[in-house]
Amino acid sequence: RDLLPDGILYASKESHYSIFKASRMYRMECQIIDTLITGEINCTELREKLFLNKDKPAIVNVNIGTTFKGGVDNLDLIIKTLEECGFSHDRFYIHCDAALNGLISPFLEYGPKLSFKKPIRSISVSAHKLLGSSIPCGVLMTRKGRITNNLSENVEYIDTLDTTISGSRNGHAPIFIWYGLKMKGRSGLHTEVNKCLTNAKYLRDGFKNAGISAMLNESSIVVVFERPLSREFIDYWQLSLLEKMAHVVVMPHVTVKMLDDFLDDLVQNREIWYGNGKVQPLCLAEEIGVSNCACLVHMN
Amino acid sequence: RDLLPDGILYASKESHYSIFKASRMYRMECQIIDTLITGEINCTELREKLFLNKDKPAIVNVNIGTTFKGGVDNLDLIIKTLEECGFSHDRFYIHCDAALNGLISPFLEYGPKLSFKKPIRSISVSAHKLLGSSIPCGVLMTRKGRITNNLSENVEYIDTLDTTISGSRNGHAPIFIWYGLKMKGRSGLHTEVNKCLTNAKYLRDGFKNAGISAMLNESSIVVVFERPLSREFIDYWQLSLLEKMAHVVVMPHVTVKMLDDFLDDLVQNREIWYGNGKVQPLCLAEEIGVSNCACLVHMN
Repeated sequence: RDLLPDGILYASKESHYSIFKASRMYRMECQIIDTLITGEINCTELREKLFLNKDKPAIVNVNIGTTFKGGVDNLDLIIKTLEECGFSHDRFYIHCDAALNGLISPFLEYGPKLSFKKPIRSISVSAHKLLGSSIPCGVLMTRKGRITNNLSENVEYIDTLDTTISGSRNGHAPIFIWYGLKMKGRSGLHTEVNKCLTNAKYLRDGFKNAGISAMLNESSIVVVFERPLSREFIDYWQLSLLEKMAHVVVMPHVTVKMLDDFLDDLVQNREIWYGNGKVQPLCLAEEIGVSNCACLVHMN
Repeated sequence: RDLLPDGILYASKESHYSIFKASRMYRMECQIIDTLITGEINCTELREKLFLNKDKPAIVNVNIGTTFKGGVDNLDLIIKTLEECGFSHDRFYIHCDAALNGLISPFLEYGPKLSFKKPIRSISVSAHKLLGSSIPCGVLMTRKGRITNNLSENVEYIDTLDTTISGSRNGHAPIFIWYGLKMKGRSGLHTEVNKCLTNAKYLRDGFKNAGISAMLNESSIVVVFERPLSREFIDYWQLSLLEKMAHVVVMPHVTVKMLDDFLDDLVQNREIWYGNGKVQPLCLAEEIGVSNCACLVHMN
């Protein structure tokens, strides 16, 4: 916002809530863009809204893995859309929010390629997710020249350059990040990512075989499924919910045994919820697509 | 800012740099007010600026201990000034920045009385200073009713109300705070505060007796003195500097022995810097007052 003070923020509606919080706090105009079933941004709508606001620079939040569905915005298509709408590279700023997927995509053969060779200006990655830091922390990468004077300040009495939003930071966080990276190493992370991807597919297949609506995006570790009916079950498994959906993020500590136990419990409970036929499982066609929906109408 | 969207931020020039950073980030108009020699806000200038901007609400940052001099703004006078300038209680917001002194002033007989019975709306206190948390953290106190909808949001998929600026927080921080409070207790903190106040006076007197310019505000643990001449000395003692000044924050771990060693080292070095009379000690009359200045002109 400091680089493009009158820029409009474009973010898909499935972006992390902090994006919209930031737009309110920083007094930025914000255009919310619709999403596809995968959770990724709808570039047709993005194009329309960019076209309507050609006179103002564009600040685009690109989700490399949305919070709930793990949908990955099509970075190359977004860049193409910006260029085709007449935005020169100095009139747009792309931030890639790769909180979860930032440590997955480098290990994917066909995953999204994030690189500063493309006209992106910053990438953020969490370190308390796949890397396992016990405190919330992460890394924001940007080019030094992109840090404006408005955001960096030489503070004499601490004898350092402050380039942060919140000032004093936790000194343990970088040590945890360093430790996580050193202990796991590139090959350790690669192995973990492969394990997560395999287990996520295993869970998705388990849902499907049990006749439960479920979706797993390409190269994602987030399995979306129907919202369980009882609060007790939700609380027991500490499930995260969104409207008619729930999801499981298949992290490295999750074993096949855990997935089996979870699925068995769900299947048993569904027998109680839906067994007598009085209540029907929710239709999730709109949320995760007809092919992933196992409601009475779409089950075949 | 969300409660008073067109409010003007008033803060003394000796406020923490994060205040001015916030005003830039949040796109708030900011009026910087001059200070007295103690570091406290100049209420005469505050009155003038308030009077000139009577049409807009006032958001006032009150320093309960400034960063460099430990100066305490006169809260009661600030409230009186606001009222006399015609600001009704719903047209001003007072935040008390008590980062360091928030854990000192409760134990002072004649210290500033912070209370929500006065028309203040928030108080912040650091927990990584006197309380000793090993990670930067603190507490912001406000009335629940003052948290606007713009700043709090019920986020379904984390099943909680987000009232923070930066979202996910360190879960260890509240444990450290709880531990610090439980271990020290009210009487332990009181003893520590008394020790710090006594040691700060001891250091101030040491400076004075050695003919070195120095200032210690009433009920403060921050001793301001002349900026040492050599980088080596500054680095060795890890001194914090501001223009012609340096300061020592006399924290609970600081012993009389440490203060003696520091003062001895400074006196020996000053002999090298100023002993041959070629270089004179700096005049600090403007910074800390004529009575605290020990330069050649003001030493008597």
